[in-house]
Amino acid sequence: MICVLSDYGTESVYVAELIGAIKKINPNAEVLSLMNNISRQNIFEGAFLLRSIAKEYPEGSIFICIVDPGVGTKRAPIIVETSKHVFIGPDNGLLYLAAKEEGIKDIYIIDTELLPERKISKTFHGRDIFAIAAAILSLGYKPSFIGNKIERIEKIDIPKALVKNSSIEGKIIYIDSFGNLITNISIDDIRLANFEKEKELEVIFKDRELTFTLPFKEVYAEVDVGKPLLLIDSFDLLEIAVNKGNAKEYFSANIMENVIIKKQWK
Amino acid sequence: MICVLSDYGTESVYVAELIGAIKKINPNAEVLSLMNNISRQNIFEGAFLLRSIAKEYPEGSIFICIVDPGVGTKRAPIIVETSKHVFIGPDNGLLYLAAKEEGIKDIYIIDTELLPERKISKTFHGRDIFAIAAAILSLGYKPSFIGNKIERIEKIDIPKALVKNSSIEGKIIYIDSFGNLITNISIDDIRLANFEKEKELEVIFKDRELTFTLPFKEVYAEVDVGKPLLLIDSFDLLEIAVNKGNAKEYFSANIMENVIIKKQWK
Amino acid sequence: MICVLSDYGTESVYVAELIGAIKKINPNAEVLSLMNNISRQNIFEGAFLLRSIAKEYPEGSIFICIVDPGVGTKRAPIIVETSKHVFIGPDNGLLYLAAKEEGIKDIYIIDTELLPERKISKTFHGRDIFAIAAAILSLGYKPSFIGNKIERIEKIDIPKALVKNSSIEGKIIYIDSFGNLITNISIDDIRLANFEKEKELEVIFKDRELTFTLPFKEVYAEVDVGKPLLLIDSFDLLEIAVNKGNAKEYFSANIMENVIIKKQWK
Repeated sequence: MICVLSDYGTESVYVAELIGAIKKINPNAEVLSLMNNISRQNIFEGAFLLRSIAKEYPEGSIFICIVDPGVGTKRAPIIVETSKHVFIGPDNGLLYLAAKEEGIKDIYIIDTELLPERKISKTFHGRDIFAIAAAILSLGYKPSFIGNKIERIEKIDIPKALVKNSSIEGKIIYIDSFGNLITNISIDDIRLANFEKEKELEVIFKDRELTFTLPFKEVYAEVDVGKPLLLIDSFDLLEIAVNKGNAKEYFSANIMENVIIKKQWK
Repeated sequence: MICVLSDYGTESVYVAELIGAIKKINPNAEVLSLMNNISRQNIFEGAFLLRSIAKEYPEGSIFICIVDPGVGTKRAPIIVETSKHVFIGPDNGLLYLAAKEEGIKDIYIIDTELLPERKISKTFHGRDIFAIAAAILSLGYKPSFIGNKIERIEKIDIPKALVKNSSIEGKIIYIDSFGNLITNISIDDIRLANFEKEKELEVIFKDRELTFTLPFKEVYAEVDVGKPLLLIDSFDLLEIAVNKGNAKEYFSANIMENVIIKKQWK
Repeated sequence: MICVLSDYGTESVYVAELIGAIKKINPNAEVLSLMNNISRQNIFEGAFLLRSIAKEYPEGSIFICIVDPGVGTKRAPIIVETSKHVFIGPDNGLLYLAAKEEGIKDIYIIDTELLPERKISKTFHGRDIFAIAAAILSLGYKPSFIGNKIERIEKIDIPKALVKNSSIEGKIIYIDSFGNLITNISIDDIRLANFEKEKELEVIFKDRELTFTLPFKEVYAEVDVGKPLLLIDSFDLLEIAVNKGNAKEYFSANIMENVIIKKQWK
């Protein structure tokens, strides 16, 4: 099974060509076109989503993940093997979060000389390199058949939330298709700060000096339609949401904005 | 074959995770991600679309359908077996139209204690309950293996059009991706009213007191580009459309608006 | 393998029904829903995309391609066999570019009397004719089983770029999901004009009498973020782009606009 994530655009011609390039080499490969609407050239978002998604997939799944602002420059095309999955994409940090979470076994730089002969465009390595590499691995070949082991991978990290005495300082790291604001504040951070029993919490959008007191609930429907709330979401992260509404619009919030969570003064 | 319909958003991270959760249990399951752009939390639209789509699918297909504003509250996760298909989703009316059309055989409430052990988030039963249930059924297990029979299902209904002496009173029940206005007035209603031979019909947008006289045609291309028309569409319903145009914009029409169709006064 | 391209809209109910209609006849058919966001009723764009995509797919692939403003009128439903693929769709030029490129072997008009009995709507031949035909061919039947050979196919052509003494006159024939402006000026035209070594080229948007001098590069990242450039893209066509930006917006460009490329006066 080959899973595709990219910023090429949902149902774009580029994804269609990439899938064809896989199928031409391995017509029996099952290709799942999962997300091609990663925010354009947003490596961080791609890395966060890949990590969240890969977690759910069975062992042996191959992931092609492409957010590649440096396509055609010297950033390397790599394959990362973990104990569970294989990740293929540009070495720009995109694959790091998922690979680190699962435990990196081996990293290979793809040697395009070892791929089946094919003209390699300068601008579309998704089709001309990554798809080909994935197809070959899906046939049962080992990464060493088309690549050479290397020692290091480009890293990025999700900024860690800071648990202080009576507050947690975090960031909005992802805004989903509903406009929910997903922070980097984990369920463990909440426990560490002893906030998990609170009925309400203060949310400070630090960069804009705005403070709101929001109910801290378990599910969206616990507040009235159109009302904001905090909850621990399916990423196990603290989320700022609006029941049946759009929190991004409600709070005019921005990705990567700083948020501070505080116990309410009583 | 497992078909997925939801309001999670096209190619959203939630759909990707849900598919993974199925594949982890049954890697051989064929998963078709059909529509995840159902209008957010619009149970009625989801029910209408599920009924229209299920009709086309072979016997034995399993449908996961999720529009679930009450996720995490006491609405039950259910499985409905008909003579042709299996429907899995929240018991909020969403599954009712399709199931009723096919003939309900058995209804089960999913017992999450009987599912493979997995942390169940409060906000994402699509991944944590419905996908798991579908995966298990796709392996050949019976619904009774993971659920308990219940007697009733939450119902909703498509409002019926009213055929009067010289008019039909209906509603716009769906607006498609082209902006076509699909009414609840069926081909049978049209016949009952003796309108099927009419060359033109009056369309009254009742709530806004607007009246138009539109040609009643068989296909879009029978009127000039940009011109409005009425026709019986592929749902076998009366549709208000604009050739190569957008009827929603042309008429500033709204979902669930009342429309009256009349023979033209001669 | 059956590939679907259409202007029905990404994840629209129509695509979902079409896939079901295939699966009901051949549950084992692998259906790839590739692009359903072709610009509405834009036959030229559909033909260009089908040609680009088909190139990547293995022999034996069946393509359903539907952009069908004349649905229900007398334009014929056809099957085109080339040495590599089978194309199914309306005879309005849509299939021509791909078929011509691969070499047309035989053309058939689908005889709906020979299809399995099914009510054929006037407005949705994608589901009621093309999907059925594709499903039957995917079972191994020959086109002659459901159609009659015909001699000619409706043609369209991509306007050819004109290589003059010191300029090339072309057009913007496709604007992709990133806003990149893809012209009909091929890598061969560039070579013929002896432009391939130029560091900069003049781009004249002829219809609007606007002239820009743009760097002629190999990859996007060779210019600063937000800066425009020319390059040969993955279609092997000259493309006007903006690094990490949107060239359509940058140049307020329009599809089918005339562009002239000139060596810079020195």
